[in-house]
Amino acid sequence: MTVPTIGVTCGDPAGIGPEIIVKTLARAEALPAASYVVFAAPRVIEAEEDRLGFRAPRHEWHPELPPEPGVFMAALPGTDATAAAGGISAVNGEASFRAFEAAVAEARAGRLEAIVTAPISKAAWALAGHPFRGHTEYLSRLYPGAVMAFWSERLKVALFSHHRPLGEAVAAVRTAALVDFFRSLRRGLAKVPGGPFRLLVAGLNPHAGEDGYLGREEEEEIRPALEKARSEGIAVAGPFPPDTVFLEALGKGDVVVAALYHDQGLIPFKLVAFATGVNVTLGLPFVRTSPDHGTAFDIAGKGIADARSMEEAVRLAVAFSATGS
Amino acid sequence: MTVPTIGVTCGDPAGIGPEIIVKTLARAEALPAASYVVFAAPRVIEAEEDRLGFRAPRHEWHPELPPEPGVFMAALPGTDATAAAGGISAVNGEASFRAFEAAVAEARAGRLEAIVTAPISKAAWALAGHPFRGHTEYLSRLYPGAVMAFWSERLKVALFSHHRPLGEAVAAVRTAALVDFFRSLRRGLAKVPGGPFRLLVAGLNPHAGEDGYLGREEEEEIRPALEKARSEGIAVAGPFPPDTVFLEALGKGDVVVAALYHDQGLIPFKLVAFATGVNVTLGLPFVRTSPDHGTAFDIAGKGIADARSMEEAVRLAVAFSATGS
Repeated sequence: MTVPTIGVTCGDPAGIGPEIIVKTLARAEALPAASYVVFAAPRVIEAEEDRLGFRAPRHEWHPELPPEPGVFMAALPGTDATAAAGGISAVNGEASFRAFEAAVAEARAGRLEAIVTAPISKAAWALAGHPFRGHTEYLSRLYPGAVMAFWSERLKVALFSHHRPLGEAVAAVRTAALVDFFRSLRRGLAKVPGGPFRLLVAGLNPHAGEDGYLGREEEEEIRPALEKARSEGIAVAGPFPPDTVFLEALGKGDVVVAALYHDQGLIPFKLVAFATGVNVTLGLPFVRTSPDHGTAFDIAGKGIADARSMEEAVRLAVAFSATGS
Repeated sequence: MTVPTIGVTCGDPAGIGPEIIVKTLARAEALPAASYVVFAAPRVIEAEEDRLGFRAPRHEWHPELPPEPGVFMAALPGTDATAAAGGISAVNGEASFRAFEAAVAEARAGRLEAIVTAPISKAAWALAGHPFRGHTEYLSRLYPGAVMAFWSERLKVALFSHHRPLGEAVAAVRTAALVDFFRSLRRGLAKVPGGPFRLLVAGLNPHAGEDGYLGREEEEEIRPALEKARSEGIAVAGPFPPDTVFLEALGKGDVVVAALYHDQGLIPFKLVAFATGVNVTLGLPFVRTSPDHGTAFDIAGKGIADARSMEEAVRLAVAFSATGS
């Protein structure tokens, strides 16, 4: 049996990343068969295991050998981060950045089918001189068509814009950019299991502008983009009133809602898929998933972090890898 | 026993308003004891009853007599609307506007404790020369401190702004206007059953601006407004990340989330309270509630409209009237 190779990056060592990785991979036999490769300083993982009171078997990763089921450690020189709970630090920012960078390099070289990323701290990355707002922004520089999406059984959402102020997000709603987004989404969704997907596009304004009474973007920017996309054979419908389109999509497995700004998509997603939602980057030559929460510095090191979203992220990474998306 | 007097306005005769009124009041004995006064052209109600296949007992309303439990009809001269299903028309716009206007006049004169409004068509109102975006906008002219809120057992939301384009809504987030809003909310919530309420204020930007990385309004406008409001003894907390504050509030009966724009509040509210949510106008000298949906012209006249939100609106109107809010 050939198994996929799934990279798992540790995230910020002072956040809950190491804990949710240890909790998830300790029961690797309950996960889909895969070669799970952890990108972290070994002593960060060991310290976490000591805290949680168990050690799980792990082997050194030899990427040149055929993948086998199990848990492996990637060699990561120079990531000797302190795992002090609760703090934002340059050394932890550097560690989480290097682990992620190394995993991306392996994936680009074809040695990983997927990367699952534990949460990082943007502030720690900034302190370490890596001014990205997150994993997705880093990947977007390498792959400009990358799309941030959120995946759960009941609701699937793709974001046209994400980490930008709302005023800027409104100004970004322009026909050409929307058409690019729909094209990226089509490409990104092409190999995702469960497709082909239908796209429901949310409007920007209340009641999707109500024929221009409550805003012009629907008529002037969004409808022309939808027409152009449809003329290229992309299955998009809308713009729909934002306050009902998510209800409309709920439970329909083959529907993805295209949300026009961060909270338009994340408010409903977190309500519907709390604790089990997965962040997915579409449109890369490899799979990338992530739990749907942050570093949670306030509860790190206490053993109480909920690992369900991490486990779902791992399962989804394996499922998406199976179809080679 | 003294019962409250609750006005019920018919909404657009071509929408589902008459149907959900007839369905709800036909089982008046299952509702809280009140004097229910319908503001509608009698033949619109009769036509609806004929369609649904039953007639319910009704009496003429004599506002000068002490209120008695039952269903009554208010005299409404000159509202001889056609109840043609499915169409937007000036005559229907005029009819729904006059019914509402008459009920408001009775409430202002102290003859109604509450008004429950069935959905109107803004477009029909515009055709009839009444350029209000809805009931709340009409009431806001009479009572500038009126606040649009949405009420359900699991989630309660108040809107800082509602029917305006998103770009305008962003620009409206200014300290002075927010302080006015918090003051109006305090006044509006003072007599509402279930209080005192705590207010959780959503941020405007993703992650509530993340210390200025993702927007400045939280630091420059919202925090100063919260400090000012707290210095006046108003129980406000925030700004919270918009994508988690609703989860935080869920199921906490004494919490109201202050949302900064229409869809920020309505997306989560409709997901959580679909079909049973109630629109409430706070800050009036009388109670005003409304079902949480529109005219639904597409299904009007078919007998298939869901009357649960209307029934909840009626129940809430009686409950709020009991405390004299």
